[in-house]
Amino acid sequence: MNRKMIGKVLGFLLLLECVFLLPPALISALDGEWVALRAFFTVMVFGAAVGGILSALCRKEAGSFYAREGFLIVSLGWIVLSMVGALPFWLSGEIPHYVDAVFEVISGFTTTGASILINVEGLSRGMLFWRSFTHWLGGMGILVFLLAIVPMGEGGYSVHLLRAESPGPSVSKLVPKMRQTAAILYLLYIALTVLCVVFLLAGGMPLFDSLCTSFGTAGTGGFGIKNDSMAGYSPYLQTVCTVFMALFGVNFSVYFLVLIGRFKQALFNEELGVYLSIFFGSIAIITTNIYPLYGSIRGALHDAAFTVSSIMTTTGFATADFNLWPQLSRTILVMLMIVGACAGSTGGGIKCARLLLLGKSLNARIRQMLHPRSVNLIQVDGATVDEETIQGVNTYMAAYCAIAVVSVLILSLDNLSLETNVTAMLACLNNIGPGLDLVGPTSNYAHFSDLSKIVLMFNMLLGRLEIFPLLVMLSPRTWRKAN
Amino acid sequence: MNRKMIGKVLGFLLLLECVFLLPPALISALDGEWVALRAFFTVMVFGAAVGGILSALCRKEAGSFYAREGFLIVSLGWIVLSMVGALPFWLSGEIPHYVDAVFEVISGFTTTGASILINVEGLSRGMLFWRSFTHWLGGMGILVFLLAIVPMGEGGYSVHLLRAESPGPSVSKLVPKMRQTAAILYLLYIALTVLCVVFLLAGGMPLFDSLCTSFGTAGTGGFGIKNDSMAGYSPYLQTVCTVFMALFGVNFSVYFLVLIGRFKQALFNEELGVYLSIFFGSIAIITTNIYPLYGSIRGALHDAAFTVSSIMTTTGFATADFNLWPQLSRTILVMLMIVGACAGSTGGGIKCARLLLLGKSLNARIRQMLHPRSVNLIQVDGATVDEETIQGVNTYMAAYCAIAVVSVLILSLDNLSLETNVTAMLACLNNIGPGLDLVGPTSNYAHFSDLSKIVLMFNMLLGRLEIFPLLVMLSPRTWRKAN
Repeated sequence: MNRKMIGKVLGFLLLLECVFLLPPALISALDGEWVALRAFFTVMVFGAAVGGILSALCRKEAGSFYAREGFLIVSLGWIVLSMVGALPFWLSGEIPHYVDAVFEVISGFTTTGASILINVEGLSRGMLFWRSFTHWLGGMGILVFLLAIVPMGEGGYSVHLLRAESPGPSVSKLVPKMRQTAAILYLLYIALTVLCVVFLLAGGMPLFDSLCTSFGTAGTGGFGIKNDSMAGYSPYLQTVCTVFMALFGVNFSVYFLVLIGRFKQALFNEELGVYLSIFFGSIAIITTNIYPLYGSIRGALHDAAFTVSSIMTTTGFATADFNLWPQLSRTILVMLMIVGACAGSTGGGIKCARLLLLGKSLNARIRQMLHPRSVNLIQVDGATVDEETIQGVNTYMAAYCAIAVVSVLILSLDNLSLETNVTAMLACLNNIGPGLDLVGPTSNYAHFSDLSKIVLMFNMLLGRLEIFPLLVMLSPRTWRKAN
Repeated sequence: MNRKMIGKVLGFLLLLECVFLLPPALISALDGEWVALRAFFTVMVFGAAVGGILSALCRKEAGSFYAREGFLIVSLGWIVLSMVGALPFWLSGEIPHYVDAVFEVISGFTTTGASILINVEGLSRGMLFWRSFTHWLGGMGILVFLLAIVPMGEGGYSVHLLRAESPGPSVSKLVPKMRQTAAILYLLYIALTVLCVVFLLAGGMPLFDSLCTSFGTAGTGGFGIKNDSMAGYSPYLQTVCTVFMALFGVNFSVYFLVLIGRFKQALFNEELGVYLSIFFGSIAIITTNIYPLYGSIRGALHDAAFTVSSIMTTTGFATADFNLWPQLSRTILVMLMIVGACAGSTGGGIKCARLLLLGKSLNARIRQMLHPRSVNLIQVDGATVDEETIQGVNTYMAAYCAIAVVSVLILSLDNLSLETNVTAMLACLNNIGPGLDLVGPTSNYAHFSDLSKIVLMFNMLLGRLEIFPLLVMLSPRTWRKAN
């Protein structure tokens, strides 16, 4: 195993995190939050020292770099970033229990948005900013950012890193060079985020609120800065979020295609078709279903659209307590939790691309049964999907189910309701945030024991990194001397 | 499509059903239940006439016979048998609503054991016998029976029929000839059933009760003849059921291996290992978990063993109201509902064999990721599993999930709890019977609307016939003229 390379990248990541801590520290300084400022400052000094030493020690890179190293860097990197990122909350005393602080930061980086905080408005503005900022950083990926700014040679390893961190069944290189691909992704991401901020400002939202809300929207994270999430904002501001959440759930390669003028290719993207069909279909059904509760189509449509956009893109903002909606609507929301957004977006879930591939291979199988001698290739967007990708999707689903089963079993030790446990697991594994019953949109994750919180943290990481990097990290085979 | 062949086999099946109606008719005659007897008699005359005409009209078989025809015969056969088998209940007025009667009989044939009856003890003895007898017939398969007794030539079609009706990822021929395989399976089945009856009689259970209980146990069905299922019987009788339910959940080819003296091969069957590990593991955990409720290890172990055996083999008998157990036990039971028994047994569920294959392919995938150039074959019981079978399992799982999602969505229209809907779907799709909440062991399926009942009927058939026969039947491609 290439330990030097792993150490070097981890060192870089720590240094990068110290840079990311600057904006929240600045806000604390401006607002005179001295306790928070001291916490940020301590962590930055500590992080810079450890990161600097680590990257200096491991400067001389040598040896080969395979998928395994990519998986390890991504898993270890995310865990280290979360454990360090939790320190400001803990040191400042704003989240007194360290496990809770790590839960909150993992929830941030993985863009889950599940919170153990009962009173969000009690946090200092610096901490609130850092909490929301983790969503934005985790959304597009921190290693992708590193690849975009630090020249590390166009070796094979950048593709392994990008593949390990990017969501979806297969990674699409926008351009032949990996570093440029990473840079284009981040530029698109920044542009869309700025646009979101502008639209929110136009609706009269204060700058601080606009920034935090945009981070939560762009990363499809869902941490709010108010105790009632988005319910207190004007309908205009809520609608801006509805639209932007949906936009950030789209595969970014579609925007790239639009940018380079290939409109037709962008429009006929099959995954986009699946995404939009489910999106509008769900809104239509839920609007009809909750209409009696609202008495006006306009009100029902508004909340249905916001909630579907929030849940399907796995953001988790809330304007209404959908826990109280009729069973059909609640059931559809649980299904949407599992489906998730598009591959190559900032959203979580199983991803529409995998759903599309599963549906197509099921169809091919039935065709094969009826006509055993026919050849049934699976095609998406006009290109044949190789056997490897299909197998990957199948194994992913098997691993997903196995993790779901084990997680719910451990959660059930807390003796909360089955609905709470299952939807908490789903909300974390799919990086959504709120579930149903005790973890519904008006509630939080403070009910759970530390053991359950640790399980849910792993679920969030497994969901964001799409299972295999962590499984590789936890496999004893990876750590054998011979490798 | 070979319509003549399909018609001929359907005709035979109807004639066979008339023969199967003789024993319950006899019981009604002996007990002087004239209304029930008249209903049985009417159905027998009607069935014999239609079956006779159909098989006579389609006597001249011609053309080819493929998997498609096998799937069609099995799906159509099971539907026709259920619709005719429901007539005695309806004609006698003992189940006044025809949809309910069909639900009850499909639940019987598919060995589900879900009931819409609020007062089981109100049925006549003839009807009770017929209800339990359907479990026994459906358990090993009605077409398997037909193959065993009617010489239809050793054409390729017998393997297609057996494959379409037998549970599990691949059908194992015990001996080269299909007809002999079918006969051996039924002889083993009859022998074990007789053994079960003898043990129950030895415990002082009346003959009628012993027969009905044995049918429910052998088919892993679960229709009881008492309102409190098995709770009223002595601990000895309950233990006999515990043991026999577990025995009927084992792959019958294991018994065949024992019979021909290959003990080692039988003992080291990998699926058996998975089955027994889950079985005893679950009993151990649940016993510990419910111990505080019972105060004695003996009592807790007794009910835990009975319930695990009942749920894992998808039988559905109950001695305790596990709806009231702690969340960990309830969650384990829901998992067991999905796992199910062994392939090639009378039990339902996904089957341990599929679980084994999924686990092995997941493991192979991780090995592949760590060592991309290695070759990772999947082996079970020393033989390499072909790609086709693995793909089949994956597609099965995808189809299973899709059906689960659609079913729960339609059930949610009734606005019952999510737990009721999900566990009702699982209990029917896996042919178990009781679920949790409103469909718990002390309750029944009378709450649901007709639409929901029809969805659940389809779930039962999909579960028993393992999805694809019905999907093929419902696929428009099957019915196109060109075929």
